[in-house]
Amino acid sequence: MCGIFAYLNYRVPRTRKEIFETLVKGLQRLEYRGYDSAGIAVDGPNKTTTDNSKNQICLIKKKGKVKALDEELYKKDSLDLDAELDTHFGLAHTRWATHGEPSALNSHPHRSDKDNEFVVIHNGIITNYKELKEYLITKGYEFESETDTEVIPKLIKYVYDNRENDAITFSTLVERVIQQLEGAFALVFKSRHYPEEAVSTRRGSPLLIGVRSEHELPAEHIPIQYNSAHFKEGIQEKNSHNRPDASINSVGDGRPVEYYFASDASAVIEHTNKVLYLEDDDVAVVSGGKLSIHRINRQAGEDPVRAVQTLQMEMQQIMKGNYDAFMQKEIFEQPESVVNTMRGRICFDSNTVVLGGLKDHLKEIRRCRRLIVIGCGTSFHAAVATRQLLEELTELPVMVELASDFLDRNTPVFRDDVCFFISQSGETADTLMALRYCKNRGALTAGITNTVGSSICRETDCGVHINAGPEIGVASTKAYTSQFVALIMFGLMMSEDRLSLQTRRLEIINGLKVLPELIKKVLSLNDKIKDIANELYQQRSLLVMGRGYNYATCLEGALKIKEITYMHSEGILAGELKHGPLALIDKHMPVIMIIMRDACYSKCQNALQQVTARSGRPIIICCQDDSEITMNAYQTIELPQTVDCLQGILSVIPLQLLSFHLAVLRGYDVDCPRNLAKSVTVE
Amino acid sequence: MCGIFAYLNYRVPRTRKEIFETLVKGLQRLEYRGYDSAGIAVDGPNKTTTDNSKNQICLIKKKGKVKALDEELYKKDSLDLDAELDTHFGLAHTRWATHGEPSALNSHPHRSDKDNEFVVIHNGIITNYKELKEYLITKGYEFESETDTEVIPKLIKYVYDNRENDAITFSTLVERVIQQLEGAFALVFKSRHYPEEAVSTRRGSPLLIGVRSEHELPAEHIPIQYNSAHFKEGIQEKNSHNRPDASINSVGDGRPVEYYFASDASAVIEHTNKVLYLEDDDVAVVSGGKLSIHRINRQAGEDPVRAVQTLQMEMQQIMKGNYDAFMQKEIFEQPESVVNTMRGRICFDSNTVVLGGLKDHLKEIRRCRRLIVIGCGTSFHAAVATRQLLEELTELPVMVELASDFLDRNTPVFRDDVCFFISQSGETADTLMALRYCKNRGALTAGITNTVGSSICRETDCGVHINAGPEIGVASTKAYTSQFVALIMFGLMMSEDRLSLQTRRLEIINGLKVLPELIKKVLSLNDKIKDIANELYQQRSLLVMGRGYNYATCLEGALKIKEITYMHSEGILAGELKHGPLALIDKHMPVIMIIMRDACYSKCQNALQQVTARSGRPIIICCQDDSEITMNAYQTIELPQTVDCLQGILSVIPLQLLSFHLAVLRGYDVDCPRNLAKSVTVE
Repeated sequence: MCGIFAYLNYRVPRTRKEIFETLVKGLQRLEYRGYDSAGIAVDGPNKTTTDNSKNQICLIKKKGKVKALDEELYKKDSLDLDAELDTHFGLAHTRWATHGEPSALNSHPHRSDKDNEFVVIHNGIITNYKELKEYLITKGYEFESETDTEVIPKLIKYVYDNRENDAITFSTLVERVIQQLEGAFALVFKSRHYPEEAVSTRRGSPLLIGVRSEHELPAEHIPIQYNSAHFKEGIQEKNSHNRPDASINSVGDGRPVEYYFASDASAVIEHTNKVLYLEDDDVAVVSGGKLSIHRINRQAGEDPVRAVQTLQMEMQQIMKGNYDAFMQKEIFEQPESVVNTMRGRICFDSNTVVLGGLKDHLKEIRRCRRLIVIGCGTSFHAAVATRQLLEELTELPVMVELASDFLDRNTPVFRDDVCFFISQSGETADTLMALRYCKNRGALTAGITNTVGSSICRETDCGVHINAGPEIGVASTKAYTSQFVALIMFGLMMSEDRLSLQTRRLEIINGLKVLPELIKKVLSLNDKIKDIANELYQQRSLLVMGRGYNYATCLEGALKIKEITYMHSEGILAGELKHGPLALIDKHMPVIMIIMRDACYSKCQNALQQVTARSGRPIIICCQDDSEITMNAYQTIELPQTVDCLQGILSVIPLQLLSFHLAVLRGYDVDCPRNLAKSVTVE
Repeated sequence: MCGIFAYLNYRVPRTRKEIFETLVKGLQRLEYRGYDSAGIAVDGPNKTTTDNSKNQICLIKKKGKVKALDEELYKKDSLDLDAELDTHFGLAHTRWATHGEPSALNSHPHRSDKDNEFVVIHNGIITNYKELKEYLITKGYEFESETDTEVIPKLIKYVYDNRENDAITFSTLVERVIQQLEGAFALVFKSRHYPEEAVSTRRGSPLLIGVRSEHELPAEHIPIQYNSAHFKEGIQEKNSHNRPDASINSVGDGRPVEYYFASDASAVIEHTNKVLYLEDDDVAVVSGGKLSIHRINRQAGEDPVRAVQTLQMEMQQIMKGNYDAFMQKEIFEQPESVVNTMRGRICFDSNTVVLGGLKDHLKEIRRCRRLIVIGCGTSFHAAVATRQLLEELTELPVMVELASDFLDRNTPVFRDDVCFFISQSGETADTLMALRYCKNRGALTAGITNTVGSSICRETDCGVHINAGPEIGVASTKAYTSQFVALIMFGLMMSEDRLSLQTRRLEIINGLKVLPELIKKVLSLNDKIKDIANELYQQRSLLVMGRGYNYATCLEGALKIKEITYMHSEGILAGELKHGPLALIDKHMPVIMIIMRDACYSKCQNALQQVTARSGRPIIICCQDDSEITMNAYQTIELPQTVDCLQGILSVIPLQLLSFHLAVLRGYDVDCPRNLAKSVTVE
């Protein structure tokens, strides 16, 4: 859940100040992945001396957000900010605590010993760290933090201290280390013993490498080097030394080049759009300015090359613009983001829907026994929101599952099941594990993600990219509405050939056509919603009630409020009111009710009467000009009406806005809610 | 959701005081069905005079519990308490508000006009009351309450006022009225125009009639009288007058007899164990001391007789005993109630499990495509709790559904589905409607109820009676654990022939054998739990977290706390923690975590570390002597360990006890939580 950033400049002179700025800016882009503490590792002041302090590494860490670290950097008198470094490798890390409280001590980079022989940054979670720690302690290694990460630098030093051969390479050390690790990780290593070299690797957590050079790169596809056990150490390294010029085994050819290691593209895009994604257990090495990829063994069916790709993402896409917060910006982007989701997929002239990524598998999907839609948090709510329509349009049983619960239950999955995996980042650990679980059981797997090249993207048989653009706010907003639209489009595609469903399909397609206009109308209620937030922001609890197509809206709205306002909000199925939750209702408990003109309208009115009979004063989200509702309501938020199955896209927006205003009024940082991070890449 | 009670004494002299006492006692037994207000209708003081006040009916109503009504009764100077009435018919009602706030005006019996020509008590909800009310207002009828019920007495008076024939019978009037009603109802009518006659009917809501007589009843099976349209009014009535002695068409033969009309048997059992259950649209008439059953038309396949049954329920089963509250008594009954659920079904010598009510359908169930388990509230949680084991032992896809959401979604159901319906009362409206929905689509239906003769019992193809005994506390406790055990037994029965599952089955059967002893050990923690309640009772919010087999425990525990303490408690899947709820955690938010030694143990420990890293101070429900947990915990509740899939039966009990103690400390009536009623017989 942390953010990793590292920067290597090879024969590109940079002052220490410039290096600091690059590292800090990289971290700021990744801050949405965690902001408990931050730290960097750079070469010490005595880089060139020959005594004990040769190749010293300097660590600077600070509890709190990246800004606090940034201020700290310039307090270090010992480092000459104007010193120009021809070649340098620096690490940076922004942390989200899983083991050990947020503190400078627990923050990254972590080190092997007091002399900083090896330092490392880590994103993920090492599940066997206790056993490793115990073993290393018996070997005399001393630990200083409470983290799981610290076993990694200790372990690499242990391997180094016990090497059988002085010619052992940095990458061999790392390969041996990761063979001992269990869990998920993306790692970047730096060492005094291997100055100007970088080694990085991953398993389960994301990692990419950006490349910038004035020169054309010698190769766009790099073959993987397999270091099988019978290879003698050093041989391969020597081999590459024998070919000092442009090797087809590496990016870079010894001419000036810069490398950026990062958890995702947003930290790299301002420097270069050439990137290389690492696969699980790849070890990427930069040595002598050349980047090569190593693996221990080749496995059947494995792609033996890694491609340097060109990113299409634009810088402005990840800037906050005129908004106070990314989340607010992303809420207001929804008229455009839903269009981007539909672009090139729905033809409003011919009323056809084609999702390119699913097209080839459609026959197989239509033949399946059931659909299972799996996600966590907001992505799960998108599944709940569209379940009824998928049931209607596919005429298949549809199960929706929270990924963690699905795994906990060892849910039976069969060859004739089709499983959808929804994740904005495409890296959500539980969802990814559920994907692998279903794949192992022979089910057809499909991804619905917002991140091209993400693990879920790569590992599913087919999928839909929601094209919502980067989402920076930790509380997901536009990704939800785009996931919603993507699932609706899937339903429309599945029912294309069903005569009896044509009227319904047409109604929905027409609804999607005008959706962006209706979203704009909902967004124009912003001031009214702000007023309501002003009345509510001092409350501690809040209930959000609805049913049918809007049950998911309640769950999602309540989650938004939980995430960024820290008010205890809960989404409640209105149909369950009398089975317990009604006991909470009195004149003090704030209640939001969603009552739309659909098949549940009269049942929702019954629920409303029950709430008002108990002196509740509900704020009602309803359809425009519904005088029957507005007459009795304490407060209403009136929305334009659309097709029943699309109404949830409109009804969630007032709750997104409400949560935003509540958080601002309560004085919280909307984009960085306490305890949470954007992309949950550990279980 | 209301409680109906009526008492007719025919040629059995009772003083007015005795009649009051019978009516009030009947209501007290039914008070768990609602306690917003109560009321009675009895004959007025001038029963025998011949002027305008002839056959006057006197209404007495009071807001609040039955006790308040009881006090009110003796304030009426105009009624001579010692007057002996040879034959008399009185109505009584305890209300749970659905339309209109709790008040004397809105309470039952409702009347046709200021002269009380017709009075009625009603349990259920009339969905077309608005249309009827509008129509009746145009005809000049004046309404005095906000209830849906009031249209019924107005409507019967309208039918009476417009009768074509003075010989029209009371039952014909009622038949015409119910033809106009939509929704659910159980009704008992009394009228000045038909002194000493009683008419009752039902559709959707429960109603039974107890019969007490010194003499042997002339018939145990009463043929239904079909009043088809071509029958001239009055003929049938005259026919029965022509046979003044023992008629095979009625219970009672003109000799002294008493009738008790009630929503359930608990109100009747102290008077008689002879009862007759009405079916939907039956009209039961007592006239001249004889009870006969009428229907408008005979339908194909309908049972043409109604049987007088003998109840086996004992009085002591519905008494509170030495406990302060029914709920507390029922929590402590669990060592016995789970034994009653297993009695005669599990043979611990041969390790076999036979559920008599499912036996004949087992082959069909084994062949099915999937299991769908449907319920509301606590019953739904029993389905969630056992889902994983059912998936494991049946090797079928298992869906669990909230009945209201299942109906809202028009969920596709197929002929090869098997649907289970769980409801303590067997009358839960949404569950019952879901049953009918599935039956119409050809699925095999099975009930899991605690009430013999309930609607779900009668309408399912097969089922299991959980035998937990009457549950009076509104917050369900022993019914949950018995539903849990019943579902486990079903899983065991399904897997009897699977060789690879025998070790697992044996482990579970052995676990069930010692379950009562382990429950006793958990109950012995009562004092410790009370201490914890003492620390928590002033909090406003409370989170309950767990995963895997104990996710349902969290949902159910949080529901208990919601229901009776009015604290905003929420059950949270620990696997979802990082996807939002973790934002709520700080040192002020009370958290209960369930961490048992099962497959989720290490994942739960991760969750625990996340909570403590955020300064949370969780109260942990864990296994005995788990030093790894107890070491770091703020408070622990240590439970005996059992088989993973049964652990939830033990882990829910501390939460049941906690909710009880919290409610007592907060000064609330445990058995009568505000706004809630026991049996939710309306949507």
